[in-house]
Amino acid sequence: MKKSLMALAMFGAFAGMAHAQTAVQIYGNVDVGLIKKSGSTLQIGKRAANTLGFKGTEDLGNGLKALFQLEIRYEPDTGTVEATNRPLFQGESRVGLAGDFGMVRIGRGRPAYQETVAAFDPWHGLPTPVGFYTDLTVAGYTSQPLDPAGSSNNRWANAIWYNSNVINGFQFNSTVATKEANGGQAVVGNGTPTNPQFPANSEASANPFSISGTYNNGPAGAMIGYERNAVESKVWTLGGSIAPVTDLRLMLTYTRQDQGHTRPTNSKTKAWVLGANYAMGPGKILAGYGQKHPDGAAKTKQLSLGYEYSLSKRTYVYLDASRKKDITTASGALAIPSAVNQYDIGMNHSF
Amino acid sequence: MKKSLMALAMFGAFAGMAHAQTAVQIYGNVDVGLIKKSGSTLQIGKRAANTLGFKGTEDLGNGLKALFQLEIRYEPDTGTVEATNRPLFQGESRVGLAGDFGMVRIGRGRPAYQETVAAFDPWHGLPTPVGFYTDLTVAGYTSQPLDPAGSSNNRWANAIWYNSNVINGFQFNSTVATKEANGGQAVVGNGTPTNPQFPANSEASANPFSISGTYNNGPAGAMIGYERNAVESKVWTLGGSIAPVTDLRLMLTYTRQDQGHTRPTNSKTKAWVLGANYAMGPGKILAGYGQKHPDGAAKTKQLSLGYEYSLSKRTYVYLDASRKKDITTASGALAIPSAVNQYDIGMNHSF
Amino acid sequence: MKKSLMALAMFGAFAGMAHAQTAVQIYGNVDVGLIKKSGSTLQIGKRAANTLGFKGTEDLGNGLKALFQLEIRYEPDTGTVEATNRPLFQGESRVGLAGDFGMVRIGRGRPAYQETVAAFDPWHGLPTPVGFYTDLTVAGYTSQPLDPAGSSNNRWANAIWYNSNVINGFQFNSTVATKEANGGQAVVGNGTPTNPQFPANSEASANPFSISGTYNNGPAGAMIGYERNAVESKVWTLGGSIAPVTDLRLMLTYTRQDQGHTRPTNSKTKAWVLGANYAMGPGKILAGYGQKHPDGAAKTKQLSLGYEYSLSKRTYVYLDASRKKDITTASGALAIPSAVNQYDIGMNHSF
Repeated sequence: MKKSLMALAMFGAFAGMAHAQTAVQIYGNVDVGLIKKSGSTLQIGKRAANTLGFKGTEDLGNGLKALFQLEIRYEPDTGTVEATNRPLFQGESRVGLAGDFGMVRIGRGRPAYQETVAAFDPWHGLPTPVGFYTDLTVAGYTSQPLDPAGSSNNRWANAIWYNSNVINGFQFNSTVATKEANGGQAVVGNGTPTNPQFPANSEASANPFSISGTYNNGPAGAMIGYERNAVESKVWTLGGSIAPVTDLRLMLTYTRQDQGHTRPTNSKTKAWVLGANYAMGPGKILAGYGQKHPDGAAKTKQLSLGYEYSLSKRTYVYLDASRKKDITTASGALAIPSAVNQYDIGMNHSF
Repeated sequence: MKKSLMALAMFGAFAGMAHAQTAVQIYGNVDVGLIKKSGSTLQIGKRAANTLGFKGTEDLGNGLKALFQLEIRYEPDTGTVEATNRPLFQGESRVGLAGDFGMVRIGRGRPAYQETVAAFDPWHGLPTPVGFYTDLTVAGYTSQPLDPAGSSNNRWANAIWYNSNVINGFQFNSTVATKEANGGQAVVGNGTPTNPQFPANSEASANPFSISGTYNNGPAGAMIGYERNAVESKVWTLGGSIAPVTDLRLMLTYTRQDQGHTRPTNSKTKAWVLGANYAMGPGKILAGYGQKHPDGAAKTKQLSLGYEYSLSKRTYVYLDASRKKDITTASGALAIPSAVNQYDIGMNHSF
Repeated sequence: MKKSLMALAMFGAFAGMAHAQTAVQIYGNVDVGLIKKSGSTLQIGKRAANTLGFKGTEDLGNGLKALFQLEIRYEPDTGTVEATNRPLFQGESRVGLAGDFGMVRIGRGRPAYQETVAAFDPWHGLPTPVGFYTDLTVAGYTSQPLDPAGSSNNRWANAIWYNSNVINGFQFNSTVATKEANGGQAVVGNGTPTNPQFPANSEASANPFSISGTYNNGPAGAMIGYERNAVESKVWTLGGSIAPVTDLRLMLTYTRQDQGHTRPTNSKTKAWVLGANYAMGPGKILAGYGQKHPDGAAKTKQLSLGYEYSLSKRTYVYLDASRKKDITTASGALAIPSAVNQYDIGMNHSF
């Protein structure tokens, strides 16, 4: 006890100092650019999510490792953390163990379906509206509808992850979340505004889960993913990619969403995205076209072109142009699509 | 001036770079587990507080050191900083000097009484309801009742700390806070809801202060602590610990709280906690039993058992079970105690 | 694709680890002291802004560098980030390139005018009311009146910076911001409270811009700066400094503000500040006197004296005394000045 008491007052403030520098890696990126969107003034914004993270591993012996990762997400144009109601560690906050059995993590992060799908997006899974990942690729699906307003659409709090190791090119990934309430907004669903199907701060009606599998064989890859969220909306995606020549990669995803648990009509949405990446020395051309078709509503159609030029392994500049013909009502009812053009030019620096 | 102006624009952004990596240590921990409490759905939560901190010392010569510490507290299950209204550096934010005279710090942190008492808790001073530190050990005492709603019960803003060095096994610790208001909630006390004794954003009626002393002699240790908070509630604790055999440590605390300044009746509370830690190789058994008895109200009784298994010096897994028969009214009036069982299983990783 | 998919699940959490420690510097400072102001209780507060930052450079070859900086600002007495509505990275969040052409940065930070003016303040540009920088030196000017209430007066979001290299002692600096709205408060200006000239969340009526030039020649230096903010208030400053003997530096600034775009009467303000720094071994004496004179309103007059004593290159203690005869109405109308005395004693530790 002597030691613990001495430590308390005189040295307590500095316990753990010895191993600190070797155990923690700081990483992140800053991505800022000029954005011009139809109908808006010129803005300074981002193309990639901006991160500042802390992570590390510890070797426990016998091939076992402990690992953690905490990732801040922020907006460099204004210096704030990401939009209202998002947590400090919006990127992720997870701790876990990895070994021969694979990897188990617990905390908050993207569920297995979302992590896998992002790898088949021609814009590297970036959340920019110029890319496809957060809207068309997932057919408009939201992973956590019972989170507070303003939350991210593709993250789970209170969840457990399992990822297998890659065996013969195959990998299996899964996530299960608790039903616990998280201070979220009401979801009217099959109820009424005064008596919503999911009142504010509801628990999930069933445990959300998310699974995916990937297979890779030289120049070809394939994926399948499925997820059910807290209001029992379901989504699945089939994806494939191929590199017919070394510098070219073609990608295709096909996705179906079923919102039948909260929406008796117009509950199905399908979507597909075709993408290409073509490397030319330090430059890379990105191209994509996709459609999202909610049952009984107008199609969303998007065409995007981009160019990235690497100044180094950690720094590149980019130029994007996109045209999206979108549905203007959030209710999913029939609407006249309006076209939005967006042009980005900017810089991305990783550290 | 030439240098300062050149520095301003071209190099100003990078001043101080040379010494940065040697001066700052990053440290912290991630603790996540499954929690099952009577009457609640299964949750993912924590047992220990989760921290991400930055600290360092500078040798000033002649045995004098400057030191600082900034500690973020967060919830890894949701990625947020600790509950609403808690500051970014909820853990602490202090700077000071240490030398032959002891250590002086200024800023925000736990007062001397709280820091000392935590060392006599069988759950290592962890804030989990399975442990005793934040409720029974301090007889329900709140260090800062004039802080904003949702604030921590055991921290002071705007304070100065002095800790002596350990001399012949004895150490003295003290903290004094200013009276300054901190945007806090009203405390009705001897007033009325429309005319509270301490209106919102009140200054303290007297300077809060907190003192403690510890004595250690081989296998035995003892402590005494006293604190008066911003509404002049007082608390004192006597504690002792002994290690009759090498792997076993027994602890006892006895505490009295006097809320007479804000409560004319039922103002006294007494509490005691008996605890034991027993080490078995990489495993450790924790056990504790305690009672809190507010004057004129029903007793709170708690029994807890726990087990920790170390995978390494920085990583352990844990399993806890606790039964607490608690008072159900916040007013301190007589109430029928209801029992809450809690079971935790999880992992703690330090970095 | 194989690599990217393997990376995704098993190693994705740790991508970028290899270069992390070399790429990021952590820096900052903690400044805490006792403050006694006329009419207030003794407080614990700060003299300098408190920072915790992350920054780095990357050599891109051919003299080109990428650079970034993210700087948290916080209050060590309470552990919070700086006042309500300020972003996490209040200090700055910028990324850019530097080379033979100078330096270009994009993001959020102090505009060129503010960065230059601060270097001619006898209190090192510190934001303390004991110094002159944030009020008298800029004639009461606010760089971003359309930011949310509680925002800093001397920072721009959504801006681009250009700084030339120093050539023959001369340097040119400039900043341009977009017009985009930032969730700010209404500015009544020439409108009415129900129909303000700039309603809440207004865009700027013209692109804000800020320029400055500095010239240094041995012991003498000079500056000129000009800025126009989002509501088209304009400010310019002429400044000079000279070191007649090695340890003494004298400074003078003269500033004019024109708020004619939002205020038809009493729209002009002029101000001047005279300062001196005198080094005596590890000690330094600071002195300043200044006046601010809004057209048609009473003058603000301020006299300040300070002493700093360095315990090391990174740590100093300080003592300040200041008397400010201030205008008591925010409207700028004639008012009876009341004097406020302020005394600070504290410690500043950089890391």
